[in-house]
Amino acid sequence: MYTLYYSPGSASMVVHLALLEAGAPHELELVDLDAGAQRAAAYLKLNPRGVVPTLVVDGQPWAESAALLMLLAERHPDSPLAPPPGTPERAAWYQWIVYLSNTLMSAFRLWFYPQDLDDTPAVRAALQRRIEGVWDFLDANLAAQGPYLLGERFSGADLLLTMLMRWSRNMPRPATGWPALKRLADLVRARRSWQRLYEVEGLREW
Amino acid sequence: MYTLYYSPGSASMVVHLALLEAGAPHELELVDLDAGAQRAAAYLKLNPRGVVPTLVVDGQPWAESAALLMLLAERHPDSPLAPPPGTPERAAWYQWIVYLSNTLMSAFRLWFYPQDLDDTPAVRAALQRRIEGVWDFLDANLAAQGPYLLGERFSGADLLLTMLMRWSRNMPRPATGWPALKRLADLVRARRSWQRLYEVEGLREW
Ligand SMILES: N[C@@H](CCC(=O)N[C@@H](CS)C(=O)NCC(=O)O)C(=O)O
Ligand SMILES: N[C@@H](CCC(=O)N[C@@H](CS)C(=O)NCC(=O)O)C(=O)O
Repeated sequence: MYTLYYSPGSASMVVHLALLEAGAPHELELVDLDAGAQRAAAYLKLNPRGVVPTLVVDGQPWAESAALLMLLAERHPDSPLAPPPGTPERAAWYQWIVYLSNTLMSAFRLWFYPQDLDDTPAVRAALQRRIEGVWDFLDANLAAQGPYLLGERFSGADLLLTMLMRWSRNMPRPATGWPALKRLADLVRARRSWQRLYEVEGLREW
Repeated sequence: MYTLYYSPGSASMVVHLALLEAGAPHELELVDLDAGAQRAAAYLKLNPRGVVPTLVVDGQPWAESAALLMLLAERHPDSPLAPPPGTPERAAWYQWIVYLSNTLMSAFRLWFYPQDLDDTPAVRAALQRRIEGVWDFLDANLAAQGPYLLGERFSGADLLLTMLMRWSRNMPRPATGWPALKRLADLVRARRSWQRLYEVEGLREW
């Protein structure tokens, strides 16, 4: 049994999707970010940095959405989340998750929390260029060997990417403007897990 | 057989260390970053972003140092790189690798390549604060439940952290100024793999 501390549409989304893809029984606990619930003393005990998600596994709390995705994939080997160890796709699985983490995840954090660095027009413009550069790179890869990050095979890396694409929806150039990225997102958005998450988290906007 | 494209002391270091810890036969190919060899056409075929490391596994090239660490750990389960799947330490292993990737790895990239974002004193000061905030957080964790990131047990996550600590050596406050971090680095620097890497890569400075 898992307990996921989440906020609708936030970084917890990929973990919630992974639980649904794995068919893993779980409970959800809402963390109201607007009300500052992530800084409540009880929550900081679970997650000292005061961010969502936290996933409680066998009574112990863990952080980092991409790490939780990999952990759930490993604990649920019959799910479609990850290719089996020993396959050539396995290297691609690790590569894309780490690439998305240290490029997009960190750039979006600064995009949404500019005070973390320096909130100037030049920094915002540079972050926008960086994010768009990642869309260029991913789109070229997917056009050459898609439709998914691992080629013909869907995986949890596509859930992570589609969540990150969604975060760009109000940017000057949303990721869906890149055709091979749009094709991937359409495939992911057609999945039962994505539709179920929208119902449960009460999301409307793509 | 593996081939590692590397540059001494760069992000390839953790992959080189992982190969040594695993006792995995490998060849090394030097990429001369000062000469711009990472942008040579032949290298861009292996690594389209023009960065090191690249690890060729069964004839296919892969990128992202933290991903390569996880891949090598999985392919060499008898090495000390990772705790076995199913153990409680496994969640910690994934968590720390992702945390180091999307905080320190991305901040150091901007620290060393400020033109990637915006090269102003305010941005440099903010990056320094961010990096130091990570040392605070890690040091508190290690003081409470070290000496290693996974507690009593050494893992490849410690190799990644020690490489990142080393990159701070010329910063105003090097990571070794934090006692629990220094203790971890001393343990890692005493390992055969670390000493062997220094010989092979010709490193001198810590
Ligand atoms: N790297 C973390 C990022 C977590 C994160 O920054 N979460 C945001 C929401 S997307 C948050 O909790 N923000 C609240 C705050 O910082 O106060 C992960 O992927 O889990
Ligand atoms: N996230 C990548 C980062 C790779 C990276 O930025 N490598 C640097 C050296 S530490 C590089 O190749 N720089 C050369 C350049 O950008 O021209 C990884 O961990 O493998």
